[in-house]
Order: sequence, then structure tokens, then C-alpha cells
Amino acid sequence: MENLYALVKKGRDAKILLIVLDGVGDLPVLEGKTPLELAKTPNLDQLVWHSATGLHIPVDYGITPGSGPGHLGLFGYDPRKIEIGRGILEALGLGLEIRETDVAVRGNFATVKYEGETPIVIDRRAGRISTEENRRLIERISAQIKEIDGVQVILCSGKEHRFSLILRFPYKLSSLAEKINDTDPQALGVPPLTPKGENEEAERVAQIAQKFIERVGVLLKEEARANFVLLRGFSVKPDLPTFYENFALQSLCIAVYPMYKGLARLVGMDVATFEGESISAEIEALKREWDRYDFFFMHIKKTDSYGEDGNFEGKVKVIEEFDSLLPEILELKPDVLAITGDHSTPCVMKSHSWHPVPVLIHSPYCLGNISRRFTERECLKGELGIFPSFKLMPLLLAHANKLTKFGA
Amino acid sequence: MENLYALVKKGRDAKILLIVLDGVGDLPVLEGKTPLELAKTPNLDQLVWHSATGLHIPVDYGITPGSGPGHLGLFGYDPRKIEIGRGILEALGLGLEIRETDVAVRGNFATVKYEGETPIVIDRRAGRISTEENRRLIERISAQIKEIDGVQVILCSGKEHRFSLILRFPYKLSSLAEKINDTDPQALGVPPLTPKGENEEAERVAQIAQKFIERVGVLLKEEARANFVLLRGFSVKPDLPTFYENFALQSLCIAVYPMYKGLARLVGMDVATFEGESISAEIEALKREWDRYDFFFMHIKKTDSYGEDGNFEGKVKVIEEFDSLLPEILELKPDVLAITGDHSTPCVMKSHSWHPVPVLIHSPYCLGNISRRFTERECLKGELGIFPSFKLMPLLLAHANKLTKFGA
Repeated sequence: MENLYALVKKGRDAKILLIVLDGVGDLPVLEGKTPLELAKTPNLDQLVWHSATGLHIPVDYGITPGSGPGHLGLFGYDPRKIEIGRGILEALGLGLEIRETDVAVRGNFATVKYEGETPIVIDRRAGRISTEENRRLIERISAQIKEIDGVQVILCSGKEHRFSLILRFPYKLSSLAEKINDTDPQALGVPPLTPKGENEEAERVAQIAQKFIERVGVLLKEEARANFVLLRGFSVKPDLPTFYENFALQSLCIAVYPMYKGLARLVGMDVATFEGESISAEIEALKREWDRYDFFFMHIKKTDSYGEDGNFEGKVKVIEEFDSLLPEILELKPDVLAITGDHSTPCVMKSHSWHPVPVLIHSPYCLGNISRRFTERECLKGELGIFPSFKLMPLLLAHANKLTKFGA
Repeated sequence: MENLYALVKKGRDAKILLIVLDGVGDLPVLEGKTPLELAKTPNLDQLVWHSATGLHIPVDYGITPGSGPGHLGLFGYDPRKIEIGRGILEALGLGLEIRETDVAVRGNFATVKYEGETPIVIDRRAGRISTEENRRLIERISAQIKEIDGVQVILCSGKEHRFSLILRFPYKLSSLAEKINDTDPQALGVPPLTPKGENEEAERVAQIAQKFIERVGVLLKEEARANFVLLRGFSVKPDLPTFYENFALQSLCIAVYPMYKGLARLVGMDVATFEGESISAEIEALKREWDRYDFFFMHIKKTDSYGEDGNFEGKVKVIEEFDSLLPEILELKPDVLAITGDHSTPCVMKSHSWHPVPVLIHSPYCLGNISRRFTERECLKGELGIFPSFKLMPLLLAHANKLTKFGA
């Protein structure tokens, strides 16, 4: 449906809770069983029997999603049609706020030698300097370069040689503003590339970026390793309808990691602030905010982290921990509860993958009595079938009885 | 994904083998069982248990594909968006090479009587003359009409009254060139239609075609039955990106029948030459070429032929023969092995059908342990679900670990 909003019954009469166990889908790891199959999950077992189940495909058949496309899909956007620039995602991951006036860029510290006035790249990652050294350098640069020609400069250290740069303009930028080449020459023994804009608006941004590069070059001239910066992935905030504009739901994100809070902010969700990083801490935040919102996106990261490490025992433990806390969540009596992942992260691959992701929807309007467990194989039998992730939101609205009839 | 190529990891690091048992999908033929269910297939049974399974839909729900759309789908093209003209398919089926400078046309020998100068069709198929007589006539025409106004004339006998005509121009043709009406009036007692072009480029082709018709009419005037020709299905080579342009895979077709070699050539695959027509001969060719390519399309015809004949015992035997040779194929240790059909050919229908086609994908990244046999009903339980045929290629690339992440 291109215009789902027109079908949405407005009004604050239902609570929808979407719990994302990041990267929860998996492949066999032990005796042919997946982590979800190995985990002891008495509470999920009971819930899933009275739920609609299925699997969702984050982007498309065979396509492995990054966290951005994975979550956009769950938020109801077709991720094939939206590009979140690398610079934006890097900034979101570091917890930076992104505005419509911003160009976000990924930066690398690099090592150059000079031939006359010309810098020549000899290490594109400055020997992978420590994160501590990175922080020291970013502090130095931040103290010296606060703005360039009226454009505010915001910097944030990442890991090792990486950092995030935001150029905040005094006016709103269009999507044209990001059409700028990377300055990383992707080779050694050559000068860095000069940033060039493909159009007038981008060229204004490119010139600020070039001045930034030059000023940093002067500032870091005496550094042994990190004496230059390379910039990549110039990007502006994507022009999206907000979650509210799509679904008329007041929404709250409960997450620990900056990336996911950032993705939620990108679609206009509020973001809960709370102490602690545990699942319990997230549930406490959920309880506290329960009366104030219609839609809750609760993100649990560790399932993915253990998948990326290939640590299936760790993944099983997180699933079991979540299961043990599930009764607390159920006490809130959400009208619709969905539990799923944003993609699969098979331990045997130690990375995200394209495999469809198990999902359950618990509401008064389920067929149910089909899946015995919340696992890949059991959800495969379920009444939801295999469907594109971005169709989950219409399903959740429907299960909340919040969509009117289409046509007479 | 519109731009899958951008995600493909380039490099010759994996072997993907796609085996197509033409028309393998079927319906119950005996005691409620399909040929795949009746066949004894110990090797497939073992393989399928450790594979991802599902069914694919060649074109769309309810749509029965010809061989062209069926294979284009398997090769990763959305067959709803590509039309292969009848003339082109006929020529491919006869083993003719098609170039960008060619218009291919289906021809029928016909019988006319003359009213004054005007030919009147009295048999649109010239009494279904024998294939031998057809060959004699085509030889005569070919000897006399080698070119018309600088356009090369290429002829090839088909079965009975059918032949293929290629008009090879000295310049590349656009898709406009094929907009020409059939000359078959689809009725008796009336003159054949004159070919007319809908546009200037097509009209140039139509005039050559008309001259060809007239010269053949003179040449065959004294023939008792086949004294005229009717032309249908004017068509040019479709303008497709090649398989390599889409997937960066060096690909080889191993097939016996000209049609399938032709379809493979149409997307730029190399075609293996080998002695013999048996499945064993095909496997020998596969072994010989194994080191030279990344992707292998191996086509087995007889499953379809027996389906078209309604001979389910024959179909079962071919499936069992294939099963007995499967270990030889597995010895090659392809990184990804897919076994499927291009469409179903139910014996009870004696024709192609729209029914989804069983498929298995064997790779290290399968859930597996779901389907006990490679059959319609068992594949229905599988982790791939029911999906469009043209999504098989992205899945095969994913299972070969040859697709990078989409988005960060």
C-alpha cells in the first residue's frame, strides 16, 4: 500500500510493542540445532503457541542487510528504496545527532609524506593508531577548528583511526549536497584526492571540506603517524516521511547502542534515556514510559554481538535471559507484541546474512496453535509465511485493529 | 535489487552448479504420487536433507511459461520484463546463431492457388509435408536466394512444414525493426497478407521480406503442395545485459538440445561441445570444463519430453537415472549446487504448466533438516518458501558467499 496512512484509525487506543533481538536468526551450530533451538525458552514456547508466526526477509532474496536497511524494514520502509549514507550511519553509530542542515562524513587518520608541498599517502590508516591517540587528536582539532566560513565543524572519535565529521550549515541542504567524491585514493604513493562537488550545492560543501583537510594538515604536520585525514561517504540526512507521518503512532525507542537510537531518531521516534545496559534496565524503561506512547521499539543487541563473534553459547544465554524476563514484559499486556530480529547473524558465518528472520505476533487475532517454539524451523510452518520485513508494520497495525477496510 | 552487480564480490573463488531437470515438477500420476515421489532416489534423499528447499514460480501465479521465460527466470532475469520473439526462439531451437543485425522469422510452407496473379491460401501448412521434403525445398531456396538487396538470407528446416528464416542486415537493428505483421491470414480462401512495417526501420525489413516471399513464390510455382510461404513472428535479438554483466560469473552451458544452448548464448554464456546426448555425456563435459568456469548451467531434457508425452514411467526412469549419477557430480564438490526445473510439465496435462517447481540449494549456509525428499510436497516445507524464479540467482550468489552487505 503506497498510502497506508489513509487507512490508519487515528487515536491512542492501542499499545504495540516490537522487540528486536538483533541478528537472532541463525543456522545449525550444534547437533543440527540453531541457538534458538538450543536455548531453553519456556516462556517463549508458551507465547509462540498462541501467536502468529513466520519469517521475514529484510531486503530481498539473497541480500544481506546492514543494520540501517534491517531496521528501516522493521520500521515499515522499503529499504531497497532508501539509501542511508555511510557518513550518516557512522555518525549515528557514534551517537551524534543529525539535522537537515548537516553533511556527515567518515574520516580516517592517515600518514602522508610531503614531496615539496604535495602530500603523498603512505598509510591510509595511520598504522591503525589506538583509540586513545585518536581521542587526543580529535580533541586537539576540535579545539582549533570550530567553524569554517560560517559552517560549524563537529568531530567525534571512532575506533582506531576512524572518526566522524559533521559539517553543519546555516541552511537546509538538499540531497544534491552529498554528491562529492571520497578523498581516499585507495592506493599508496599517490596524493589524496581533492573533494569535488558534482553540482553547485555539493561544490560549496566540497570547498569547506577541502579547507578542513588543509587546516588539519597544518595542525598535525608534526605528528609521526596521524598527520593527515582522508574523507569518505559524504552524506546528508535521508528525506523520509516520519514514523508518525506513516502510521500515526507516538513511538519510543528503547535501546542501548547509539546506532539504533540514531536510526530511530532518523524516523522521528523519541529515544528513552535510562541507566544501565541490561535487558532488565530496558524493561524498567519500558514500564516507566508505558503510558506515554503507542508504539515501542525495544532493541536487544547482544544476540548479534555473539553471532558476530561466532559464540553460540553466548547467543543461547542471551536468548535464555530474554526468555526469563519475558513474563515481566507480558505483565504490561501490550495489545500487540511482536518479537523478531532485524536480520540473521549466523554464528558459523560470524556476520550478518540474508537468511529470513523468525517473527511472532501475539494479539487476539491470531490463528495460532501452529509453532511449538520460536525457532527458524517452527516459524517456517506459521501463518505469516515468508514476507518482506517492511510489511511487518501493516501487520502490527492490523493486529492492533488500527486499519480500516480498503475499498467498500 | 535493481543493481545486484554492485554487491557482487568479484573474483573467481567459487563454483556454482545449476542443474535443470526440464519440466521436473508434476502432479499425482499413480496412487496420489508424483513422478518425483514415485522415483527411487537414495542420493537425492540424502542431499536434500542437508539442503535449503522451496518452490519457485517461473513467471507469475497461474502463468505457464515457455522454455524461454522459464530459463530467463533461472538465469536471473525477470521474464515478465523481457520478450523473446517467436522468430528468435524458433531459430534458437534449430541451433541458429542470432546477431544484433538479424531479424528472425518463423516460416510455414503453404499451398496457394492463383486467381489471376493473386495467390489464394488453400492449405496453411501445405498438407504437413514431410520433414525430408521440407529439407529438399529449403536446399533449393537457399541455393537460389542467398541475399536480397544486400541483406543476407539464412534458412533452416524445421519439422514438417516449418522453417526458420533469418534476414541478416549489414547494420545493427533496433527493437523497432520487428514491428511487422504476420503474413499468415489465419483463414483459407483469402490471399496471404503483405508484410507492413509499423515504422520506417520495420518497413525496410518488411520490403525485404515481401521480396523474399515473391521470389519463393516464383521458385516453387510448380510444386504440388508447398508452393508458397507464410511468415510469422518477426523478431530481433532482445537487448539484455549479459549474465556476466549481471553477476560477474564466467558461465558455461552444458545442454544437448539447441533451444537451451541458444537461450544460454542469448545471455552470453559459453556453450560446451561434447559427444553424445546422455546425462553421463553431460557430466563428462562438466568434469572436463570444471576448472575453467565459475557457473555451470546443466540442462537435462528428457524429464520434460516424457511429461509432454504423458509417460510418467519414462519420467520416473530419467529421475532415477539422474539420481544414480548424482554422486559423480557431488565428487566435483561445487560450493553451491542447485537442482530444479525451469517449469512443471505434469504428465496428466501433457504440457508445461504454471505449478511452482521444486528447488534445492546445497551449500554450507543452509538450515536444512526439513525436507526428507526432493519432491513437490517436501520442498513446500522448506526454508526458501515459494519465490519468483528470478530470485534464484541472488540466492545462489549469497550461498556462494559472493554478495557483500547492502548498506551499513
